[in-house]
This record gives sequence, C-alpha cells and structure tokens, in this order.
Amino acid sequence: MLLRIDHVGIACHSLDEAIERYESVFGLAVASREVSTEQGVREAMLEVGQAGGGPSWVQLLEPLSPDTPVGRFLARRGEGIHHIGYAVADIGAALAELGGRHIRLIDERPRHGSMGAAIAFLHPADLGGVLTELVQPAAR
Amino acid sequence: MLLRIDHVGIACHSLDEAIERYESVFGLAVASREVSTEQGVREAMLEVGQAGGGPSWVQLLEPLSPDTPVGRFLARRGEGIHHIGYAVADIGAALAELGGRHIRLIDERPRHGSMGAAIAFLHPADLGGVLTELVQPAAR
Repeated sequence: MLLRIDHVGIACHSLDEAIERYESVFGLAVASREVSTEQGVREAMLEVGQAGGGPSWVQLLEPLSPDTPVGRFLARRGEGIHHIGYAVADIGAALAELGGRHIRLIDERPRHGSMGAAIAFLHPADLGGVLTELVQPAAR
Repeated sequence: MLLRIDHVGIACHSLDEAIERYESVFGLAVASREVSTEQGVREAMLEVGQAGGGPSWVQLLEPLSPDTPVGRFLARRGEGIHHIGYAVADIGAALAELGGRHIRLIDERPRHGSMGAAIAFLHPADLGGVLTELVQPAAR
C-alpha cells in the first residue's frame, strides 16, 4: 500500500524563519508555497532528493491562527515534527482497505493537499501516537 | 547534502506490538531487528518502498530502560514520532559542513546505526525542535 515516505510535516512558528533554516543549513530549495484555509496553515514544500521511486519532501507548516490543529500542536508541544506522510498509488483504495481494518480515518474521503495531491489523515490513536497522512501525488 | 528521507524513527512502549501494527495495518515487513546498548534501544526496521534513489524505512524504537533518550521521550511525550533521518553520501563531509555552519552536533563523529549504517544526530535546538539524524547507509 505504501510506496515511500513522501514527506515529514514540521510545525513552526515562523514559516520564513523555518525556510531560511532549511535553505541555509541543508541547501534545500522551496518548490511550492501555499496557504490552506481548510487546514489552517501557511506551508512550504522543500524537495529532499529525487530519482528512483519519486521525490521526498520537508513540509514546513505555520498555523494561520492558534485555533487550528497545527496551532494547538505548537501550544501543546512546541516546534517539531507534526506528522509523517506516505505516498500511495490510489488513495481511495487505500482508505477503503484501512477502513476495513478498523483504522479510524480523520478524513473519510480524500481532500486537497499540497501541490495538487489528494490526501487523507489517519487518526494517531490507532497508530501508536503517530499522526499519519496518505498522499496520492498529482499526476505530473 | 541530503539524498532523501531515509527513515522516520517512532518511539513505542512495546516493539512487538508496534511491529504487529505496521504489519497488519500497512503490510510492511521487518527487514532487520537489532538491540543497541549504546543507544539504549531495541529496534526494528520496516521497509517502505523507495524514496529518492533508495529505500525508506519505518524505524520502531523501544527503550531498553526508562533512563535512556527514548525512555525519557516516552515519559515526556508518550508514543509518537521521535526523529527524522536523512540519507547522505558522505557523513564525515556532511558533519564537517554542518559544523562549519555552527549547527550543534550531538555526535561529533559518526557512530554505528541500524543495518551497518554510519549515523550522527544533530541537536534539535538549532533545527526548530526537530531531532535530525544523518545516515550513510552501508554499501550493499
């Protein structure tokens, strides 16, 4: 079901400062910046490597307000790793399969993610405290 | 410098239960089990497809005792994502480069990691709260 680690989602107070850090420390470059009012974040995707089975990404997430999932995460835990995203070939099929295994789905149906992907979050309570995202990347 | 996301490290109370979860939910398979007294963990590596030019992994970590880094993480935060690991081609060169950028290194010199890799941890204080590991995989 899982093709690869697609991205690690990192919660930060300042998107600009976080981007500057990943650029200057690791030489990563921003491939995309977006604002998602649905998810309550301002975000950037920075590509890590490329070849073989596909790219992997660092996703930097700044909350649009304290009263958002990432805002509450920052208040509770401070900056750090927020979630892990795995690439799948067919997100609808993956959600059906996981639902059949009684894994609680935060998103029963796929919704819009970064760079045109279809995404869905799985509940951390069934996955050892790990907020887990499935990502079906947009066709290129 | 970073070739791809190599792995996500996940702290758990019971390695056997966590393995069973990733096997039954996502169909992953254990490629390696090891005990590292140096790092104070019992661990398993489960392959997740290919990211960038090589494999990516879920690394499950059970502390050998409460008085270890992962044991203290569990006491403070509970189960969840502990760190992110990036593959590099030459870990010695990467550490020298990062040291020159004044990034605090937990490991000044590479040490032994899973499956024969050479690894080093970078301090989360300089990286937005993200415990970050560099991994030079063993030659195959």
